[in-house]
Amino acid sequence: MNNICVCIYTRFWLTHLVFMGAGAMGEIKHLVIVKFKEGVVVEDIVRGMEKLVSEFDLVKSFEWGQDSEGPEMLTQGFTHSFSMTFDKKEDYAEFQSHPNHVEYSATFSAAIEKIVVLCFPSVRVKPSA
Amino acid sequence: MNNICVCIYTRFWLTHLVFMGAGAMGEIKHLVIVKFKEGVVVEDIVRGMEKLVSEFDLVKSFEWGQDSEGPEMLTQGFTHSFSMTFDKKEDYAEFQSHPNHVEYSATFSAAIEKIVVLCFPSVRVKPSA
Repeated sequence: MNNICVCIYTRFWLTHLVFMGAGAMGEIKHLVIVKFKEGVVVEDIVRGMEKLVSEFDLVKSFEWGQDSEGPEMLTQGFTHSFSMTFDKKEDYAEFQSHPNHVEYSATFSAAIEKIVVLCFPSVRVKPSA
Repeated sequence: MNNICVCIYTRFWLTHLVFMGAGAMGEIKHLVIVKFKEGVVVEDIVRGMEKLVSEFDLVKSFEWGQDSEGPEMLTQGFTHSFSMTFDKKEDYAEFQSHPNHVEYSATFSAAIEKIVVLCFPSVRVKPSA
């Protein structure tokens, strides 16, 4: 099961990287929102992600949060947000393809019921640069 | 139509604020991801939001981005992310209930096909505080 997840997840990322295009400028934001499966120990998943990003200087920022009480009409059932920042898309690509990330992705993929992933050049309006 | 949108949107936010609870600590992140309706001039929507947040010192940070090329299996059709930061949930509540926000919300609501809103105390792992 995990091997299948690794394959699917890795294909997701490789496909995603191809689709990001070559025109992205500035800081790259990698945003993931998820709903975890029933019974998942979310603390373990989060600790794993914290450990992973601590191993990469390429990951310039990492923050996460849990909205466990927002009304369904707003959250659509999603509960957690994870956000990482990279200086450039090449750094993001390097992180995504690293064996440690691929290994962690298997655990993460197995734990999620649904997911949205957005990756984009971030436009910071406030505070101004 | 716009009046109905304002009512629905305001009810969303008021419900949301009630559900946020009293235990939230630290910086509050307000995250919105959307898919806009066909034909919407997104630039106008974004400029309106930039203008809105510029009027409020309560909004400590505001950034947005567009992932227009991510594969559907990752983006689920969502294209834009908007993220605001507040020092505390009372500031978020004040912003949400301000007439200028309520007015803008009518425009925003009319432009979106689907939306996810998460609001949570942000846990910043990197860079450390």
